[in-house]
Amino acid sequence: MASPSKFDPNHLGKNTWVPNIEPGSDFSIYNLPFGIVSTKSDPAPHVAAAIGSHILDLKVFFTHPEGPYHRPFPSFHEFDGFEALLLDVFSQPTLNAFAALGRAVRSKVRNTLQQLLVAQTPYPSVLRDNMPLRAAALLEDSEVTAMHLPMTIGDYTDFYAGYYHAHAVGTLFRGPDAALQPNYLHMPIGYHGRSSSIVVSDTPIRRPVGQVAHVGEDGKQIVSTGPTRKLDIELELGCFIASENRMGDSVDVDSAAKYVFGYVLLNDWSARDVQAWEYVPLGPFNGKNFATTISPWVVLAEAMEPYRTVPGHELDRKSLQPYLCEANTENVLDINLRVYLQTTAGVTTPITRTNSRYLIWSFPQMIAHHTLGGCPLRTGDLLGSGTISGPDGSYESGSLLEVTENGKKPLKLVQTGTRTFLEDGDTVIIRGFAGADWSRVGFGPCRGKIIGPSLKK
Amino acid sequence: MASPSKFDPNHLGKNTWVPNIEPGSDFSIYNLPFGIVSTKSDPAPHVAAAIGSHILDLKVFFTHPEGPYHRPFPSFHEFDGFEALLLDVFSQPTLNAFAALGRAVRSKVRNTLQQLLVAQTPYPSVLRDNMPLRAAALLEDSEVTAMHLPMTIGDYTDFYAGYYHAHAVGTLFRGPDAALQPNYLHMPIGYHGRSSSIVVSDTPIRRPVGQVAHVGEDGKQIVSTGPTRKLDIELELGCFIASENRMGDSVDVDSAAKYVFGYVLLNDWSARDVQAWEYVPLGPFNGKNFATTISPWVVLAEAMEPYRTVPGHELDRKSLQPYLCEANTENVLDINLRVYLQTTAGVTTPITRTNSRYLIWSFPQMIAHHTLGGCPLRTGDLLGSGTISGPDGSYESGSLLEVTENGKKPLKLVQTGTRTFLEDGDTVIIRGFAGADWSRVGFGPCRGKIIGPSLKK
Repeated sequence: MASPSKFDPNHLGKNTWVPNIEPGSDFSIYNLPFGIVSTKSDPAPHVAAAIGSHILDLKVFFTHPEGPYHRPFPSFHEFDGFEALLLDVFSQPTLNAFAALGRAVRSKVRNTLQQLLVAQTPYPSVLRDNMPLRAAALLEDSEVTAMHLPMTIGDYTDFYAGYYHAHAVGTLFRGPDAALQPNYLHMPIGYHGRSSSIVVSDTPIRRPVGQVAHVGEDGKQIVSTGPTRKLDIELELGCFIASENRMGDSVDVDSAAKYVFGYVLLNDWSARDVQAWEYVPLGPFNGKNFATTISPWVVLAEAMEPYRTVPGHELDRKSLQPYLCEANTENVLDINLRVYLQTTAGVTTPITRTNSRYLIWSFPQMIAHHTLGGCPLRTGDLLGSGTISGPDGSYESGSLLEVTENGKKPLKLVQTGTRTFLEDGDTVIIRGFAGADWSRVGFGPCRGKIIGPSLKK
Repeated sequence: MASPSKFDPNHLGKNTWVPNIEPGSDFSIYNLPFGIVSTKSDPAPHVAAAIGSHILDLKVFFTHPEGPYHRPFPSFHEFDGFEALLLDVFSQPTLNAFAALGRAVRSKVRNTLQQLLVAQTPYPSVLRDNMPLRAAALLEDSEVTAMHLPMTIGDYTDFYAGYYHAHAVGTLFRGPDAALQPNYLHMPIGYHGRSSSIVVSDTPIRRPVGQVAHVGEDGKQIVSTGPTRKLDIELELGCFIASENRMGDSVDVDSAAKYVFGYVLLNDWSARDVQAWEYVPLGPFNGKNFATTISPWVVLAEAMEPYRTVPGHELDRKSLQPYLCEANTENVLDINLRVYLQTTAGVTTPITRTNSRYLIWSFPQMIAHHTLGGCPLRTGDLLGSGTISGPDGSYESGSLLEVTENGKKPLKLVQTGTRTFLEDGDTVIIRGFAGADWSRVGFGPCRGKIIGPSLKK
């Protein structure tokens, strides 16, 4: 493969010949995220990349008679002899096979695709100027009939690396002096989540029934079962694992970035009343396992590389265990994060405006900790960052628990109404992006609408 | 399929023509557990059933020219037209496809296999008296070169349903008055475990490195990282799920038994010092996720049906939430459980002698609780019961934490030596069985040997 062209993120202009791209699109040419689509012409789930308001259908691209498998491209645009492998990989219903190829191959493939899409590509370009191939493989996003979960997820681990979230929740329940548990600044606290209930954006979320307890007027504990009254969101980043470590072997923190495939937005829906009653001593269970929503496009680690920064709250490195000390101090991502609540009336209220740099632990640190005792990670495993909140609780909080102080201070919605927790019919939308204008690297929406509980007879 | 013959568990005699079976074999004809084997003649993992010291290689059985697929058996021994399906299902490297067939089909298949193996089968029997088929499919267990994980496990959930274990551990850390948490008698407490580190019996277990904390002489907390000094076992039953519930739908407790495929023995290895430092507030993580061992043969739910009993400690049904009230009060299993510790010198010390009836919650109750909020279970999911201990802590405890009171009272080994927790080179063997003599239904060993930690430079 020829040396990949380097793109200057500050370069002016839209930098792709793909039509109708807008400044501020999540899917600039600097992004090129991968996802699993069904299209009008091919309903079987398969791989595509997003560019502006279009997708490049990679299954069609590689299987087409004019595509690089059947008619090898000129050397500048070649796929290094991987054409047959990529035809298979991009025909799969998940990204696991692509992730497992390793970062070197993935980067080359992504760079070659960027070269094909870049505005400066000379005439005749093998994609832009080959009308049969372009018409078949470059589709408007309206041709997409469904987005699917991008990976087969073996294990899902949810961390708790949002410093201001942990601090705010701790303050709420234990007061400011005991806000953080003694272990919090020493390791990325996490728990094993439920992989079977991870769903892709736009899957409706059924309000869960659960067991709860409250103290009655006589001071006695009353236990009951019913639909949760405290349905909440958790604004998180998700990180998909590309490479496996052998069981018994740990991953060095400075090698851990190589294990990352890419990122998604993640909403870890939570039933706070259920969680409060069940979580001692083994952690959250039914309060969390009813649903977790992720955005459908995986933004590759390479696309986020320019957006590393130092954490908004830095740990004292001297007190860190050596296995958690990264050489790179710009170890967290600078992603702008937004949460919106839309009512059934269609009115949208911004709830949260924060940034992923408020994570106190990086994904490499989470990976190093997770594997410290030899726990094997597998291709497709998902790590959640934990809820991300900024230092200003009033509009930087990644959960309604914080925004409303556990329901005590209702949130005023735009136009009319208030919320303590979510109501049936509410839609929650998370957005996230780095960069700006023509070089924005974003995720597309992570969205879910609450539907009423399933009640027996 | 003809009506399955009923076996009388009290019938005298070995009840099978398979040679060399011994009284007290875990794999009597009343059991017929299923597992995944490699054999000398076929190293590709595939399905077999165990009978005495033999296996019936079900892939060979169905693919053989004299087997039921190529030469249909007489009506009394037929497989109801499922021969082609079963040939495929038994050639798979896991039992997931077999489990997903549903209980009615599974029971018929098992019953038909029992008919083929029963002593009273009239001459000429299609297996016993067909020498080419018998020689190829009925193998001595020495022909088995490896046993594999029986299922592809999506999610692993570990419950905490051992009443006397919870009580003993709570007493150890909080005193007898606060032994049980307020929620304990109201729901089956559980947490999501790690599925990637579940291994089959005889896989060596590497002592994990972990982060721990202790209080120094000056009263200050000292955090360090190193091999665990409190490596422990947890004696549990595992339950494999056969059927799926749709996300958002709960499973009724009186229908939940239909979701069970079968049972295995389970050792939830635990690093107590790591667990103690990490578990607040989200539960166990690295203290557990380095390894979980299960026995290789899945004892089907049908084989355990005669061994239902009432729990050793009964819950007050009046205080139970309705979704947890089972019509059947004989809802737990009467399985005798043993734990042995074998040193490198080959000397074996019995540690534990207890019974699974000391579980306070049944697997149907765990399933009803797990799905209450709509969490989807999938074929191959594994539920751990939680550590099983009896009321007498001195020899009925399923963990060394209890036996040695967190290391304070060393256990005296047979011949020489003591243990507080496990040492490198120790082998732990769990055994379990119901019934006796010629009708015993057992699991075979669940075994793991501790090897030294992986230490960097």
